[in-house]
Amino acid sequence: LEEGDEQRVQELAEPLHNADIADLIEQFAPSERPDLAAALGDQLSPEVIAEMDDEVREDLVDLLPPEVVASVLSELDTDDAVAIVEDLDEEDQKAVLRALTADDRAALEEALGYPEESAGRLMQRDLIAVPQDWDVGQVIDFLRAAETDDLTEEFWEIFVVDARHHPVGTLKLSHLLRAPRPTKIADIMLREQTLVPVDMDQEEVALRFQKYALISAAVVDDAERLVGMITVDDIVHVVRQEADEDFRRLTGAEEGGLNERTRDIVRQRLRWLVINLGTAVAASIVIGVFSDTIEQIIALAILMPIVASLGGNAATQTMAVTVRALATDELTVSNTGRTIVKELRVALINGVAIAALIGIAAGVYFAQPLLGVVIAAAMLGNIVIAGLAGLLIPILLDRADIDPAISSSVFVTMTTDVMGFLLFLGLATAVLL
Amino acid sequence: LEEGDEQRVQELAEPLHNADIADLIEQFAPSERPDLAAALGDQLSPEVIAEMDDEVREDLVDLLPPEVVASVLSELDTDDAVAIVEDLDEEDQKAVLRALTADDRAALEEALGYPEESAGRLMQRDLIAVPQDWDVGQVIDFLRAAETDDLTEEFWEIFVVDARHHPVGTLKLSHLLRAPRPTKIADIMLREQTLVPVDMDQEEVALRFQKYALISAAVVDDAERLVGMITVDDIVHVVRQEADEDFRRLTGAEEGGLNERTRDIVRQRLRWLVINLGTAVAASIVIGVFSDTIEQIIALAILMPIVASLGGNAATQTMAVTVRALATDELTVSNTGRTIVKELRVALINGVAIAALIGIAAGVYFAQPLLGVVIAAAMLGNIVIAGLAGLLIPILLDRADIDPAISSSVFVTMTTDVMGFLLFLGLATAVLL
Repeated sequence: LEEGDEQRVQELAEPLHNADIADLIEQFAPSERPDLAAALGDQLSPEVIAEMDDEVREDLVDLLPPEVVASVLSELDTDDAVAIVEDLDEEDQKAVLRALTADDRAALEEALGYPEESAGRLMQRDLIAVPQDWDVGQVIDFLRAAETDDLTEEFWEIFVVDARHHPVGTLKLSHLLRAPRPTKIADIMLREQTLVPVDMDQEEVALRFQKYALISAAVVDDAERLVGMITVDDIVHVVRQEADEDFRRLTGAEEGGLNERTRDIVRQRLRWLVINLGTAVAASIVIGVFSDTIEQIIALAILMPIVASLGGNAATQTMAVTVRALATDELTVSNTGRTIVKELRVALINGVAIAALIGIAAGVYFAQPLLGVVIAAAMLGNIVIAGLAGLLIPILLDRADIDPAISSSVFVTMTTDVMGFLLFLGLATAVLL
Repeated sequence: LEEGDEQRVQELAEPLHNADIADLIEQFAPSERPDLAAALGDQLSPEVIAEMDDEVREDLVDLLPPEVVASVLSELDTDDAVAIVEDLDEEDQKAVLRALTADDRAALEEALGYPEESAGRLMQRDLIAVPQDWDVGQVIDFLRAAETDDLTEEFWEIFVVDARHHPVGTLKLSHLLRAPRPTKIADIMLREQTLVPVDMDQEEVALRFQKYALISAAVVDDAERLVGMITVDDIVHVVRQEADEDFRRLTGAEEGGLNERTRDIVRQRLRWLVINLGTAVAASIVIGVFSDTIEQIIALAILMPIVASLGGNAATQTMAVTVRALATDELTVSNTGRTIVKELRVALINGVAIAALIGIAAGVYFAQPLLGVVIAAAMLGNIVIAGLAGLLIPILLDRADIDPAISSSVFVTMTTDVMGFLLFLGLATAVLL
């Protein structure tokens, strides 16, 4: 398909949506992508580039001369352009910015001045704002008169501003359409609006969009002036990205998805494995303390991983719910107490059930009832500790302003491993020897 | 706050958004919620009820007489009404449906006829559709003439249909606004549109919205007739819900969030813990086979959990990425081969690094170089197996049409536990005895 026959490639790609062409490129091996991109010619539009995965795009953009990248950027909305530029090396970034027109450069530099993952990076500067003393006819004439190129392509709401460019209301297009021409804008705009400060974290922005079912929102600077807008299509990506990020962080997997580079994957996962090696060694030290006991009752060596493993599983269940409840602001000061009581109750019920099962099985299999009692007691204790650890460790990390998704598992796993071995082997030493 | 002083409660709630009132109710303990709801009076509008968490809403709605529930439903869009009705017991559902007007009942019954989590449940039937031979002026006059109550409150796109009610295009309000009155609709509508079949799974619908940055989409029945529309604000919830669901399923946590009932949490988690008890026992059986070896070299009992634990961690990293890549259609037949090669490479690099660390440490600490070699070899082997298991088990489950998020961890954990103990104790028996 790819060898030489460029015309055929372009014919095949012609009926496809930009997002589909981007997907197609991602499905090819990294080494084949530049050839495919070249064969696509004009089909590889700025919009296709904007649709690609960060990693795939980075590789492709690195191959293009700065002037070409600059011309791609100038055709995109600010938010899409920023997404491309922010991933470039500093050198390349400078070269590309130099190749832009002064206006585009200023817009991009301002956006890059905001922190990563903030509203300022997510917003587009192209929006429609009208003075509050206009009437419906003036707004419609303004929209009709404007050059198509000057208007942002997609908008569903018009922002109404006062003389100092502070947003005072939002005008839905559906309301605008249905009002007679002489109607005052001030009479049909919605005064209740959700303003997004330019430095707000994107996760917080996404929560507001979800909560108030927003379609777009005005972004304001420190002086409350309108500086941009965020639209819901970008928020859909943020919602998915933030949920996936929490998920991957809890397991120490790479931040990016399938297209992340091998080198980056190794670095991110290895760091996590080394930390886990540390916690595994800590658990082994506990076992080492009781090696005399194990030498006398070898059944302990056979049974001890069960206590640690079930504790780990129980803790992970609670932790998964807690981390997401914290991320979505569902777990607050006022319901923490109630949640602790509920977790304790769940842990007690499940702990008793699992303890009974393993206690009877072990007691019967090893023909040693007291061994069954010991493992049952240790199991119950560890599952209760697991429930508390899975809930309290993320909460405490969150209070200390540490991302619970990144660091909870280490502490939680260490707690259930160490306590599992300590309870089981300690009880066995006290009761069985 | 809650005792008697209803007026004060209503005053405090007055300036709040519906979503904030819903949040407020959720923050109270389940036993206090009915009193608070009663105190809120008219502030507890149908929209507030629609905004609540499923579990919280269910409890409250259960307390209301069917007639009241019916009057709440009649004020909501079909999608919100369905969300409330689908959670009711069969008895209550029938009583509520009987209390509705014939029109509303027919609409709800039809929606309930579609499978759960399908486009049919998610869509609203209130939408604006116009014939393709109209011009801009006719559309605007139609919108202005319609009673406000007859139009859905929020719409950003108008669907254009042919004589048989098949959608033929989409008209953005921004395009409508900017076109002169005599312009033919057929000339300014977008012909390229994403149609959603009524029985499509909501996860698939969400992927299309994300991919094509849609704001709303037409839902069609088997005969390709327009039957409803889905808007992006509902999709934002689906995206988050589906990502969170995968996350919780992998850990065996409950499907709902913080407000799930204790009884349901216990049931869901306990099932998972019992399965995990089974896999933990399987691993113990492997240890039991080698109990003679352990009796002779007690260091093996101390070190063996490290091999199993690191394998489990490495597998979970790969599994987290794979499960989400499958859910979002990023992992396909054409890039599976490449992904396997990449995972193998990552596993080999990380395996060698971790094996070297633990091998040297164990060899030095126990003053037994050969023991160091054995644990290093077992660790390397288990991390490579972990990488393959974390990738291939979810893929195989997905091919067999089993949700990989639900079942992957069981198989993956069992593989790394069993193989960890088998490799380490097996090698030790062969080499050290």
